[in-house]
Amino acid sequence: MLAISAPSGAGKSTICRALLKRNQALVLSISVTTRAPRPEEINGRDYHFISVIAFNDLIATGGLLEHAEIFGHYYGTLSQPVAETLTAGRDVLFDIDWQGYRQLQSKTTDDIVSIFILPPSIEELERRLRRRGQDSHQTISNRMHTVANEISHWEEYRYVIVNRNIEHSVAAIQTILETERLRAHRQTGLRDFVNALYRRKF
Amino acid sequence: MLAISAPSGAGKSTICRALLKRNQALVLSISVTTRAPRPEEINGRDYHFISVIAFNDLIATGGLLEHAEIFGHYYGTLSQPVAETLTAGRDVLFDIDWQGYRQLQSKTTDDIVSIFILPPSIEELERRLRRRGQDSHQTISNRMHTVANEISHWEEYRYVIVNRNIEHSVAAIQTILETERLRAHRQTGLRDFVNALYRRKF
Repeated sequence: MLAISAPSGAGKSTICRALLKRNQALVLSISVTTRAPRPEEINGRDYHFISVIAFNDLIATGGLLEHAEIFGHYYGTLSQPVAETLTAGRDVLFDIDWQGYRQLQSKTTDDIVSIFILPPSIEELERRLRRRGQDSHQTISNRMHTVANEISHWEEYRYVIVNRNIEHSVAAIQTILETERLRAHRQTGLRDFVNALYRRKF
Repeated sequence: MLAISAPSGAGKSTICRALLKRNQALVLSISVTTRAPRPEEINGRDYHFISVIAFNDLIATGGLLEHAEIFGHYYGTLSQPVAETLTAGRDVLFDIDWQGYRQLQSKTTDDIVSIFILPPSIEELERRLRRRGQDSHQTISNRMHTVANEISHWEEYRYVIVNRNIEHSVAAIQTILETERLRAHRQTGLRDFVNALYRRKF
């Protein structure tokens, strides 16, 4: 389980897209949301867009691994696809905020590899947020305040990457994934090898 | 602090030499020992060869970060050079056994990056141990039993590398070092950056 969080404007979406393109073993967890799709968004690719009634049903039936409310809209992660992907031996990428990450941690005994992405500078962050043409002034202003709040949680993550350059950031995450596969507790296949070695009489 | 352990014959010494050659920021901690030098060993490069009396003095004056007895000989790590290297902003490589690693953990609050290296197969391990011409049959036999004991501690380490190929193993450790530098708690310089970002009024 790989969780990536970042404040709006840090470049998280671009980084996640590049990561998924290069890692066939990595599958994006597609969130459900009650908010309306943006013009460029496609149902089932960017989000599963559902009604508030359907969302409440999912909560009631334990169908969500985590959920949160952001600016009056609900967001959540479906439990079943995550379980299926992990069982198939693939990794799941969670593109979530700090609230979602906290819930994920409390809902699973799995060791989650968590990465927080920071924008390179305050000026660059502001520039990126203002460039999104389709958002109203109020939305941008709200998002600016959320950014400060989101960033205050950076130390809860295992790794931090300052996104000065998309290529470098993606390469850094690839390096993290390679390293995490070398963790002793993930190399479950080694136990048999070591046991055979240990039983052998010299 | 980077601690690397392995049973005899896993290829640890070759890997450590290659690592030090490629990482100018990495400094080997040279152990003190009371055993006699092997023909190819040089005092001050491979070990500081000292008397049992001098060793006991070091223990008494708190000059050792860790120490252990192996086959009637004493081995230890000098505290002062380690502290000086870390203060200078460089990393210290500890080429130690599981006993030394345990002591190191108990003597420091620093987060130690620990790696255990395994031989590729039992047959290859045996072949490597027998090839060391200068050792007596008894020494080889003793070492074989120590190997099984050493290997039983592999799960106490953060990472495990099966040394099928020196080049690949060295590359894997380089990847681990790059990744560990991205750990949130190691990026102390980020705190100022984030604080400035957080204080900013949008």
